[in-house]
Amino acid sequence: MSDQWLSTLITATPQEGFELAITLSRRGVKYTQPDPDTLKKLRPEYANNVEDLIASSQVIAINFQTVAAANNYWRK
Amino acid sequence: MSDQWLSTLITATPQEGFELAITLSRRGVKYTQPDPDTLKKLRPEYANNVEDLIASSQVIAINFQTVAAANNYWRK
Amino acid sequence: MSDQWLSTLITATPQEGFELAITLSRRGVKYTQPDPDTLKKLRPEYANNVEDLIASSQVIAINFQTVAAANNYWRK
Amino acid sequence: MSDQWLSTLITATPQEGFELAITLSRRGVKYTQPDPDTLKKLRPEYANNVEDLIASSQVIAINFQTVAAANNYWRK
Amino acid sequence: MSDQWLSTLITATPQEGFELAITLSRRGVKYTQPDPDTLKKLRPEYANNVEDLIASSQVIAINFQTVAAANNYWRK
Amino acid sequence: MSDQWLSTLITATPQEGFELAITLSRRGVKYTQPDPDTLKKLRPEYANNVEDLIASSQVIAINFQTVAAANNYWRK
Repeated sequence: MSDQWLSTLITATPQEGFELAITLSRRGVKYTQPDPDTLKKLRPEYANNVEDLIASSQVIAINFQTVAAANNYWRK
Repeated sequence: MSDQWLSTLITATPQEGFELAITLSRRGVKYTQPDPDTLKKLRPEYANNVEDLIASSQVIAINFQTVAAANNYWRK
Repeated sequence: MSDQWLSTLITATPQEGFELAITLSRRGVKYTQPDPDTLKKLRPEYANNVEDLIASSQVIAINFQTVAAANNYWRK
Repeated sequence: MSDQWLSTLITATPQEGFELAITLSRRGVKYTQPDPDTLKKLRPEYANNVEDLIASSQVIAINFQTVAAANNYWRK
Repeated sequence: MSDQWLSTLITATPQEGFELAITLSRRGVKYTQPDPDTLKKLRPEYANNVEDLIASSQVIAINFQTVAAANNYWRK
Repeated sequence: MSDQWLSTLITATPQEGFELAITLSRRGVKYTQPDPDTLKKLRPEYANNVEDLIASSQVIAINFQTVAAANNYWRK
Protein backbone atom coordinates (compact mmCIF):
# COMPACT_ATOMS: atom_id res chain seq x y z
CA MET A 1 0.00 0.00 0.00
CA SER A 2 2.22 2.78 -1.24
CA ASP A 3 -0.45 5.41 -1.85
CA GLN A 4 -0.62 8.42 0.43
CA TRP A 5 -3.89 8.54 2.27
CA LEU A 6 -3.16 10.26 5.61
CA SER A 7 -1.36 13.58 5.60
CA THR A 8 -2.98 15.20 8.64
CA LEU A 9 -5.26 14.44 11.60
CA ILE A 10 -6.65 17.99 11.58
CA THR A 11 -10.21 18.41 10.35
CA ALA A 12 -12.49 21.42 10.10
CA THR A 13 -15.37 19.94 12.12
CA PRO A 14 -16.03 17.12 14.61
CA GLN A 15 -18.09 15.34 12.01
CA GLU A 16 -15.21 15.32 9.53
CA GLY A 17 -13.09 14.07 12.42
CA PHE A 18 -15.52 11.23 13.01
CA GLU A 19 -15.39 10.36 9.33
CA LEU A 20 -11.60 10.36 9.47
CA ALA A 21 -11.87 7.94 12.40
CA ILE A 22 -13.91 5.67 10.14
CA THR A 23 -11.24 5.90 7.45
CA LEU A 24 -8.57 4.97 9.99
CA SER A 25 -10.62 1.99 11.15
CA ARG A 26 -11.09 0.73 7.61
CA ARG A 27 -7.42 1.22 6.82
CA GLY A 28 -6.57 -0.89 9.85
CA VAL A 29 -8.55 -3.70 8.27
CA LYS A 30 -7.13 -3.07 4.81
CA TYR A 31 -3.51 -3.30 5.94
CA THR A 32 -4.27 -6.80 7.27
CA GLN A 33 -6.42 -7.88 4.31
CA PRO A 34 -5.38 -5.79 1.29
CA ASP A 35 -7.38 -7.70 -1.32
CA PRO A 36 -10.43 -5.58 -2.28
CA ASP A 37 -12.38 -8.59 -3.56
CA THR A 38 -12.04 -10.45 -0.28
CA LEU A 39 -13.04 -7.32 1.64
CA LYS A 40 -16.08 -6.89 -0.59
CA LYS A 41 -17.10 -10.50 -0.02
CA LEU A 42 -16.81 -10.11 3.75
CA ARG A 43 -18.84 -6.89 3.87
CA PRO A 44 -22.41 -8.32 3.82
CA GLU A 45 -21.34 -10.68 6.59
CA TYR A 46 -20.29 -8.08 9.16
CA ALA A 47 -22.84 -5.47 8.10
CA ASN A 48 -25.59 -7.85 9.22
CA ASN A 49 -23.97 -9.17 12.34
CA VAL A 50 -24.71 -7.31 15.56
CA GLU A 51 -21.45 -8.21 17.31
CA ASP A 52 -19.41 -7.11 14.30
CA LEU A 53 -21.29 -3.82 14.03
CA ILE A 54 -20.72 -3.04 17.71
CA ALA A 55 -17.05 -4.03 17.41
CA SER A 56 -16.68 -1.78 14.35
CA SER A 57 -18.25 1.10 16.26
CA GLN A 58 -15.75 0.48 19.05
CA VAL A 59 -12.75 0.75 16.73
CA ILE A 60 -14.19 3.98 15.34
CA ALA A 61 -14.62 5.27 18.91
CA ILE A 62 -10.97 4.54 19.71
CA ASN A 63 -9.75 6.25 16.55
CA PHE A 64 -12.10 9.17 17.21
CA GLN A 65 -10.38 9.68 20.58
CA THR A 66 -7.12 10.18 18.72
CA VAL A 67 -8.55 12.51 16.08
CA ALA A 68 -10.50 14.54 18.66
CA ALA A 69 -7.40 15.00 20.83
CA ALA A 70 -5.39 16.03 17.76
CA ASN A 71 -7.95 18.76 17.08
CA ASN A 72 -8.14 19.92 20.70
CA TYR A 73 -11.72 18.71 20.55
CA TRP A 74 -12.60 21.51 18.10
CA ARG A 75 -12.95 23.89 21.05
CA LYS A 76 -13.46 27.42 19.91
CA MET B 1 -24.74 10.04 4.86
CA SER B 2 -24.47 13.65 3.86
CA ASP B 3 -26.57 15.14 6.65
CA GLN B 4 -24.86 17.21 9.32
CA TRP B 5 -25.27 15.61 12.71
CA LEU B 6 -22.18 16.59 14.71
CA SER B 7 -21.19 20.22 14.93
CA THR B 8 -19.70 20.30 18.42
CA LEU B 9 -18.61 18.02 21.27
CA ILE B 10 -19.50 20.67 23.86
CA THR B 11 -22.58 20.01 25.97
CA ALA B 12 -24.18 21.89 28.85
CA THR B 13 -24.17 18.98 31.31
CA PRO B 14 -22.47 15.60 31.83
CA GLN B 15 -25.76 13.88 31.13
CA GLU B 16 -26.08 15.56 27.74
CA GLY B 17 -22.48 14.54 27.17
CA PHE B 18 -23.37 10.93 27.95
CA GLU B 19 -26.26 11.13 25.53
CA LEU B 20 -23.95 12.53 22.87
CA ALA B 21 -21.67 9.54 23.52
CA ILE B 22 -24.64 7.30 22.76
CA THR B 23 -25.28 9.18 19.53
CA LEU B 24 -21.64 8.73 18.51
CA SER B 25 -21.84 5.01 19.27
CA ARG B 26 -24.96 4.60 17.18
CA ARG B 27 -23.48 6.62 14.33
CA GLY B 28 -20.48 4.30 14.37
CA VAL B 29 -22.86 1.43 13.70
CA LYS B 30 -24.85 3.39 11.12
CA TYR B 31 -21.81 4.27 9.00
CA THR B 32 -21.13 0.53 8.68
CA GLN B 33 -24.76 -0.50 8.17
CA PRO B 34 -26.64 2.51 6.79
CA ASP B 35 -29.89 0.70 5.99
CA PRO B 36 -32.49 1.68 8.64
CA ASP B 37 -34.62 -1.42 8.01
CA THR B 38 -31.71 -3.78 8.65
CA LEU B 39 -30.80 -1.85 11.80
CA LYS B 40 -34.39 -2.05 13.01
CA LYS B 41 -34.46 -5.79 12.40
CA LEU B 42 -31.21 -6.27 14.36
CA ARG B 43 -32.37 -4.21 17.35
CA PRO B 44 -34.45 -6.82 19.25
CA GLU B 45 -31.53 -9.20 18.86
CA TYR B 46 -28.89 -7.13 20.63
CA ALA B 47 -31.29 -5.50 23.09
CA ASN B 48 -31.91 -8.94 24.59
CA ASN B 49 -28.42 -10.28 24.47
CA VAL B 50 -26.27 -9.71 27.53
CA GLU B 51 -22.93 -9.71 25.70
CA ASP B 52 -24.21 -7.21 23.13
CA LEU B 53 -25.59 -4.93 25.84
CA ILE B 54 -22.28 -4.92 27.71
CA ALA B 55 -20.38 -4.35 24.47
CA SER B 56 -22.70 -1.43 23.62
CA SER B 57 -22.11 0.06 27.05
CA GLN B 58 -18.37 -0.24 26.43
CA VAL B 59 -18.52 1.71 23.17
CA ILE B 60 -20.55 4.40 24.94
CA ALA B 61 -17.93 4.49 27.71
CA ILE B 62 -15.14 5.03 25.18
CA ASN B 63 -17.03 7.80 23.42
CA PHE B 64 -17.92 9.35 26.77
CA GLN B 65 -14.20 9.60 27.54
CA THR B 66 -13.82 11.77 24.44
CA VAL B 67 -16.85 13.95 25.13
CA ALA B 68 -15.92 14.37 28.80
CA ALA B 69 -12.36 15.42 27.93
CA ALA B 70 -13.72 17.87 25.33
CA ASN B 71 -15.80 19.49 28.06
CA ASN B 72 -12.99 19.55 30.63
CA TYR B 73 -15.17 17.15 32.59
CA TRP B 74 -17.73 19.92 33.19
CA ARG B 75 -15.59 21.17 36.07
CA LYS B 76 -16.90 24.42 37.44
CA MET C 1 -35.32 8.45 29.70
CA SER C 2 -36.04 12.02 30.65
CA ASP C 3 -35.04 11.84 34.31
CA GLN C 4 -31.93 13.64 35.43
CA TRP C 5 -29.37 11.21 36.80
CA LEU C 6 -25.96 12.77 36.06
CA SER C 7 -25.30 16.34 37.10
CA THR C 8 -21.58 16.09 37.91
CA LEU C 9 -18.59 13.77 37.60
CA ILE C 10 -17.05 15.14 40.80
CA THR C 11 -17.12 12.86 43.83
CA ALA C 12 -15.74 13.21 47.33
CA THR C 13 -13.68 10.01 47.32
CA PRO C 14 -12.19 7.52 44.83
CA GLN C 15 -14.64 4.91 46.05
CA GLU C 16 -17.62 7.14 45.27
CA GLY C 17 -15.97 7.72 41.90
CA PHE C 18 -15.78 3.98 41.34
CA GLU C 19 -19.43 3.66 42.23
CA LEU C 20 -20.28 6.45 39.78
CA ALA C 21 -18.37 4.48 37.14
CA ILE C 22 -20.66 1.55 37.87
CA THR C 23 -23.70 3.79 37.48
CA LEU C 24 -22.39 5.01 34.12
CA SER C 25 -21.82 1.44 32.97
CA ARG C 26 -25.34 0.40 33.94
CA ARG C 27 -26.83 3.47 32.29
CA GLY C 28 -25.02 2.55 29.08
CA VAL C 29 -26.88 -0.75 29.16
CA LYS C 30 -30.17 0.88 30.14
CA TYR C 31 -30.16 3.33 27.23
CA THR C 32 -29.94 0.36 24.87
CA GLN C 33 -32.44 -1.82 26.75
CA PRO C 34 -34.72 0.51 28.75
CA ASP C 35 -37.23 -2.15 29.85
CA PRO C 36 -36.61 -2.92 33.55
CA ASP C 37 -38.29 -6.33 33.35
CA THR C 38 -36.03 -7.49 30.53
CA LEU C 39 -32.98 -6.20 32.40
CA LYS C 40 -34.08 -8.05 35.53
CA LYS C 41 -34.53 -11.25 33.56
CA LEU C 42 -31.04 -10.94 32.06
CA ARG C 43 -29.33 -10.28 35.40
CA PRO C 44 -28.93 -13.87 36.71
CA GLU C 45 -27.51 -14.80 33.33
CA TYR C 46 -24.57 -12.38 33.29
CA ALA C 47 -24.00 -12.46 37.05
CA ASN C 48 -23.09 -16.14 36.74
CA ASN C 49 -21.12 -15.97 33.55
CA VAL C 50 -17.39 -15.42 33.87
CA GLU C 51 -16.93 -13.70 30.50
CA ASP C 52 -19.81 -11.31 31.20
CA LEU C 53 -18.46 -10.47 34.64
CA ILE C 54 -15.02 -9.68 33.25
CA ALA C 55 -16.56 -7.65 30.42
CA SER C 56 -18.65 -5.71 32.97
CA SER C 57 -15.56 -5.01 35.03
CA GLN C 58 -13.88 -3.71 31.88
CA VAL C 59 -16.66 -1.21 31.14
CA ILE C 60 -16.45 -0.04 34.76
CA ALA C 61 -12.68 0.36 34.38
CA ILE C 62 -13.12 2.53 31.27
CA ASN C 63 -15.72 4.72 32.96
CA PHE C 64 -13.54 4.93 36.06
CA GLN C 65 -10.75 6.37 33.90
CA THR C 66 -13.10 9.21 32.98
CA VAL C 67 -14.34 9.84 36.51
CA ALA C 68 -10.82 9.65 37.97
CA ALA C 69 -9.49 12.16 35.43
CA ALA C 70 -12.43 14.47 36.14
CA ASN C 71 -11.46 14.45 39.81
CA ASN C 72 -7.75 14.92 39.16
CA TYR C 73 -7.38 11.48 40.68
CA TRP C 74 -8.43 12.83 44.10
CA ARG C 75 -4.87 14.04 44.64
CA LYS C 76 -4.59 16.10 47.79
CA MET D 1 -21.23 -3.20 49.72
CA SER D 2 -20.97 -0.53 52.38
CA ASP D 3 -17.41 -1.22 53.50
CA GLN D 4 -14.72 1.29 52.64
CA TRP D 5 -12.08 -0.24 50.43
CA LEU D 6 -10.73 2.61 48.29
CA SER D 7 -9.57 5.79 49.97
CA THR D 8 -6.75 6.77 47.61
CA LEU D 9 -5.21 5.93 44.25
CA ILE D 10 -1.74 6.93 45.45
CA THR D 11 0.73 4.12 46.06
CA ALA D 12 4.37 4.08 47.08
CA THR D 13 5.62 2.02 44.14
CA PRO D 14 4.52 0.96 40.63
CA GLN D 15 4.13 -2.59 41.85
CA GLU D 16 1.73 -1.53 44.59
CA GLY D 17 -0.06 0.45 41.90
CA PHE D 18 -0.34 -2.67 39.76
CA GLU D 19 -1.73 -4.56 42.72
CA LEU D 20 -4.26 -1.79 43.31
CA ALA D 21 -5.27 -2.16 39.65
CA ILE D 22 -5.94 -5.83 40.36
CA THR D 23 -8.07 -4.88 43.36
CA LEU D 24 -10.07 -2.46 41.20
CA SER D 25 -10.59 -5.16 38.56
CA ARG D 26 -11.83 -7.65 41.13
CA ARG D 27 -14.10 -5.06 42.73
CA GLY D 28 -15.64 -4.40 39.33
CA VAL D 29 -16.60 -8.07 39.22
CA LYS D 30 -17.75 -8.10 42.83
CA TYR D 31 -20.14 -5.17 42.40
CA THR D 32 -21.88 -7.17 39.65
CA GLN D 33 -21.77 -10.53 41.46
CA PRO D 34 -21.52 -9.81 45.21
CA ASP D 35 -22.03 -13.39 46.39
CA PRO D 36 -18.65 -14.76 47.55
CA ASP D 37 -19.73 -18.39 47.11
CA THR D 38 -20.67 -17.86 43.48
CA LEU D 39 -17.40 -16.04 42.85
CA LYS D 40 -15.47 -18.87 44.46
CA LYS D 41 -17.25 -21.42 42.31
CA LEU D 42 -16.46 -19.45 39.13
CA ARG D 43 -12.76 -19.03 39.96
CA PRO D 44 -11.39 -22.41 38.75
CA GLU D 45 -13.29 -21.86 35.52
CA TYR D 46 -11.65 -18.58 34.47
CA ALA D 47 -8.28 -19.38 36.01
CA ASN D 48 -7.92 -22.23 33.53
CA ASN D 49 -9.37 -20.53 30.50
CA VAL D 50 -6.95 -18.72 28.23
CA GLU D 51 -9.46 -16.18 26.90
CA ASP D 52 -10.61 -15.32 30.43
CA LEU D 53 -7.04 -14.91 31.65
CA ILE D 54 -6.18 -12.55 28.79
CA ALA D 55 -9.42 -10.62 29.33
CA SER D 56 -8.62 -10.32 33.05
CA SER D 57 -5.15 -9.04 32.22
CA GLN D 58 -6.77 -6.46 29.95
CA VAL D 59 -9.02 -5.10 32.69
CA ILE D 60 -6.00 -4.88 34.97
CA ALA D 61 -4.12 -3.00 32.23
CA ILE D 62 -6.95 -0.46 31.90
CA ASN D 63 -7.13 0.09 35.64
CA PHE D 64 -3.34 0.32 35.81
CA GLN D 65 -3.50 3.22 33.32
CA THR D 66 -5.67 5.08 35.80
CA VAL D 67 -3.54 4.30 38.84
CA ALA D 68 -0.31 5.10 37.00
CA ALA D 69 -1.65 8.47 35.82
CA ALA D 70 -2.82 9.24 39.37
CA ASN D 71 0.71 8.67 40.59
CA ASN D 72 2.35 10.67 37.79
CA TYR D 73 3.86 7.36 36.78
CA TRP D 74 5.99 7.32 39.95
CA ARG D 75 8.48 9.59 38.21
CA LYS D 76 11.17 10.77 40.60
CA MET E 1 14.07 -11.61 19.99
CA SER E 2 17.31 -9.76 20.47
CA ASP E 3 17.18 -7.64 17.32
CA GLN E 4 16.57 -3.92 17.65
CA TRP E 5 13.39 -2.92 15.92
CA LEU E 6 12.07 0.12 17.83
CA SER E 7 14.37 3.04 18.48
CA THR E 8 11.85 5.88 18.35
CA LEU E 9 8.12 6.59 18.25
CA ILE E 10 8.66 9.77 16.23
CA THR E 11 7.64 9.66 12.57
CA ALA E 12 7.62 12.27 9.84
CA THR E 13 3.94 11.94 8.93
CA PRO E 14 0.69 10.57 10.42
CA GLN E 15 0.69 7.83 7.82
CA GLU E 16 4.14 6.64 8.86
CA GLY E 17 2.83 6.79 12.41
CA PHE E 18 -0.09 4.58 11.45
CA GLU E 19 2.30 2.14 9.83
CA LEU E 20 4.41 2.12 12.99
CA ALA E 21 1.23 1.30 14.91
CA ILE E 22 0.81 -1.72 12.64
CA THR E 23 4.39 -2.78 13.33
CA LEU E 24 3.76 -2.51 17.07
CA SER E 25 0.60 -4.60 16.75
CA ARG E 26 2.40 -7.32 14.82
CA ARG E 27 5.30 -7.31 17.26
CA GLY E 28 2.81 -7.84 20.09
CA VAL E 29 1.73 -11.02 18.32
CA LYS E 30 5.29 -12.05 17.51
CA TYR E 31 6.50 -11.81 21.10
CA THR E 32 3.78 -14.32 22.04
CA GLN E 33 4.25 -16.58 19.01
CA PRO E 34 7.83 -16.09 17.74
CA ASP E 35 7.82 -18.93 15.22
CA PRO E 36 7.55 -17.41 11.70
CA ASP E 37 6.20 -20.64 10.19
CA THR E 38 3.33 -20.82 12.66
CA LEU E 39 2.53 -17.15 12.09
CA LYS E 40 2.54 -17.71 8.32
CA LYS E 41 0.17 -20.65 8.70
CA LEU E 42 -2.23 -18.59 10.83
CA ARG E 43 -2.28 -15.63 8.42
CA PRO E 44 -4.86 -16.85 5.85
CA GLU E 45 -7.10 -17.73 8.77
CA TYR E 46 -7.38 -14.29 10.33
CA ALA E 47 -7.12 -12.39 7.05
CA ASN E 48 -10.42 -13.94 5.99
CA ASN E 49 -12.22 -13.73 9.30
CA VAL E 50 -14.27 -10.62 9.91
CA GLU E 51 -13.98 -10.68 13.71
CA ASP E 52 -10.21 -11.12 13.52
CA LEU E 53 -9.87 -8.27 11.03
CA ILE E 54 -11.88 -5.91 13.24
CA ALA E 55 -9.91 -7.01 16.31
CA SER E 56 -6.65 -6.38 14.44
CA SER E 57 -7.85 -2.93 13.46
CA GLN E 58 -8.64 -2.27 17.12
CA VAL E 59 -5.11 -3.15 18.27
CA ILE E 60 -3.73 -0.86 15.55
CA ALA E 61 -6.07 1.92 16.76
CA ILE E 62 -4.79 1.55 20.34
CA ASN E 63 -1.16 1.62 19.25
CA PHE E 64 -1.89 4.57 16.95
CA GLN E 65 -3.14 6.51 20.00
CA THR E 66 0.30 6.06 21.54
CA VAL E 67 2.24 6.96 18.41
CA ALA E 68 0.02 9.98 17.68
CA ALA E 69 0.44 11.32 21.23
CA ALA E 70 4.20 10.80 20.98
CA ASN E 71 4.22 12.97 17.87
CA ASN E 72 1.95 15.66 19.34
CA TYR E 73 -0.48 14.59 16.64
CA TRP E 74 1.84 15.98 13.95
CA ARG E 75 0.40 19.44 14.61
CA LYS E 76 2.28 22.11 12.71
CA MET F 1 3.48 -13.23 44.87
CA SER F 2 5.71 -11.42 47.28
CA ASP F 3 8.71 -10.95 44.99
CA GLN F 4 9.53 -7.49 43.74
CA TRP F 5 9.28 -7.30 39.99
CA LEU F 6 8.29 -3.71 39.18
CA SER F 7 10.27 -0.87 40.67
CA THR F 8 9.97 1.67 37.84
CA LEU F 9 8.14 2.34 34.58
CA ILE F 10 11.11 4.24 33.17
CA THR F 11 13.10 2.51 30.45
CA ALA F 12 16.06 3.62 28.35
CA THR F 13 14.43 2.98 24.95
CA PRO F 14 10.97 2.50 23.43
CA GLN F 15 11.81 -1.13 22.74
CA GLU F 16 12.60 -1.78 26.40
CA GLY F 17 9.34 -0.02 27.17
CA PHE F 18 7.51 -2.38 24.83
CA GLU F 19 9.13 -5.33 26.53
CA LEU F 20 8.08 -3.95 29.91
CA ALA F 21 4.53 -3.76 28.54
CA ILE F 22 4.79 -7.47 27.75
CA THR F 23 5.97 -8.17 31.28
CA LEU F 24 3.00 -6.22 32.68
CA SER F 25 0.61 -8.16 30.46
CA ARG F 26 2.03 -11.51 31.58
CA ARG F 27 1.95 -10.45 35.22
CA GLY F 28 -1.72 -9.59 34.82
CA VAL F 29 -2.29 -13.21 33.80
CA LYS F 30 -0.02 -14.57 36.52
CA TYR F 31 -1.82 -12.75 39.33
CA THR F 32 -5.02 -14.51 38.24
CA GLN F 33 -3.41 -17.90 37.60
CA PRO F 34 -0.25 -18.11 39.71
CA ASP F 35 0.49 -21.79 39.09
CA PRO F 36 3.44 -22.03 36.63
CA ASP F 37 2.51 -25.55 35.54
CA THR F 38 -1.00 -24.54 34.55
CA LEU F 39 0.35 -21.52 32.68
CA LYS F 40 2.85 -23.73 30.86
CA LYS F 41 0.10 -26.13 29.87
CA LEU F 42 -2.05 -23.28 28.51
CA ARG F 43 0.77 -21.73 26.48
CA PRO F 44 0.66 -23.92 23.32
CA GLU F 45 -3.09 -23.33 23.23
CA TYR F 46 -3.06 -19.54 22.99
CA ALA F 47 0.17 -19.33 21.01
CA ASN F 48 -1.58 -21.14 18.16
CA ASN F 49 -4.92 -19.43 18.37
CA VAL F 50 -5.39 -16.31 16.25
CA GLU F 51 -7.97 -14.68 18.50
CA ASP F 52 -5.80 -15.21 21.59
CA LEU F 53 -2.74 -13.81 19.84
CA ILE F 54 -4.62 -10.67 18.78
CA ALA F 55 -6.10 -10.30 22.28
CA SER F 56 -2.62 -10.65 23.79
CA SER F 57 -1.30 -8.00 21.44
CA GLN F 58 -4.15 -5.74 22.57
CA VAL F 59 -3.26 -6.08 26.25
CA ILE F 60 0.36 -5.29 25.38
CA ALA F 61 -0.82 -2.22 23.43
CA ILE F 62 -2.78 -0.94 26.45
CA ASN F 63 0.15 -1.46 28.78
CA PHE F 64 2.48 0.14 26.26
CA GLN F 65 0.30 3.28 26.36
CA THR F 66 1.02 3.51 30.09
CA VAL F 67 4.74 2.86 29.80
CA ALA F 68 5.11 5.26 26.85
CA ALA F 69 3.32 8.06 28.73
CA ALA F 70 5.49 7.40 31.80
CA ASN F 71 8.56 7.93 29.63
CA ASN F 72 7.19 11.03 27.88
CA TYR F 73 7.32 8.90 24.76
CA TRP F 74 11.12 8.88 24.88
CA ARG F 75 11.14 12.29 23.20
CA LYS F 76 14.60 13.76 23.06
